[in-house]
Amino acid sequence: MIRLAVALVHYPVLDRAGETVTTAITNLDLHDMARSARTYGASGLYVVHPIAAQRLLADRIYEHWVHGSGKKRIPDRAEAIELLRVAPSLDDVYASLGGRDAIAIWTTAASARRHVTTYAEGRSLLAKSDRTVLLMFGTGWGLAKSVLDDADVRLEPIRAREDAGYNHLSVRAACAITLDRLLG
Amino acid sequence: MIRLAVALVHYPVLDRAGETVTTAITNLDLHDMARSARTYGASGLYVVHPIAAQRLLADRIYEHWVHGSGKKRIPDRAEAIELLRVAPSLDDVYASLGGRDAIAIWTTAASARRHVTTYAEGRSLLAKSDRTVLLMFGTGWGLAKSVLDDADVRLEPIRAREDAGYNHLSVRAACAITLDRLLG
Repeated sequence: MIRLAVALVHYPVLDRAGETVTTAITNLDLHDMARSARTYGASGLYVVHPIAAQRLLADRIYEHWVHGSGKKRIPDRAEAIELLRVAPSLDDVYASLGGRDAIAIWTTAASARRHVTTYAEGRSLLAKSDRTVLLMFGTGWGLAKSVLDDADVRLEPIRAREDAGYNHLSVRAACAITLDRLLG
Repeated sequence: MIRLAVALVHYPVLDRAGETVTTAITNLDLHDMARSARTYGASGLYVVHPIAAQRLLADRIYEHWVHGSGKKRIPDRAEAIELLRVAPSLDDVYASLGGRDAIAIWTTAASARRHVTTYAEGRSLLAKSDRTVLLMFGTGWGLAKSVLDDADVRLEPIRAREDAGYNHLSVRAACAITLDRLLG
């Protein structure tokens, strides 16, 4: 297990118009990102949602696969879903990891910002980090500016090819590629 | 656009017990894999399913996102879903690409087999291939042996880390990582 946890953020994130919104939980996000997190040795997958009924949904998915009939049917899924931690806010995630100062916040984004860190630099930083890295993925149209502004490291966008001109990966695919580039 | 097409195979694939079965289409597979294929410049995403009602489902997804109201709401999704080709069998896919001899079949698998090709070798082979590469992903518990036996190139499993001991990525995540390793 390495000192990297993944966060899937449903608030604060952007909508198409650039407004800050709350998105709904997608069941397959939890499965895919937990499986990728487990495969690459991450210590947890934090699902951040401010609405109690949505957190209850995530809790039920956890129960089904970790303790319920899902575990009997597909035991290896339990090993992945066990990584799921459900939190009402980013501050709660920070607190459960020892506080904001105890962690390094790394953000991901589909479009370029100033002062981005390349994946090669990220690999090297991660290998020598003495703080737990919290690697954040935004749902919707990406993490809100307040989250990006507070980041210690802003990873560069996943550019497939110089000439591709299309960069609309799903959060599930982006998470898989990012973990592979940093840890694979 | 590069000369690589992706195939998502629902038959012949294995179930948990190693029997050859037909799996059902998962809507998000089509979205995620089309988005990844488009991002990395693949020429098409072939969805292979022997059952007409399942092909009709894929056709409707195509219509909704390429010509219907989906396109109005999220135009960039149309650019990805446009890559979707629906075929009843692998032989039909081969025929539409000029026949079995005109293509190179590359398979992916979660467990090791003899004579696998590393991703580094794959990158180099792909760059100089004079045939269209058809990169295959199995649903369920993976591609049937008959498909692997007929392959020109069998890519090595995605090993995250030497000591990870867990390798149960979703087909959506595996496709994203494979395209990134071969073309990113």
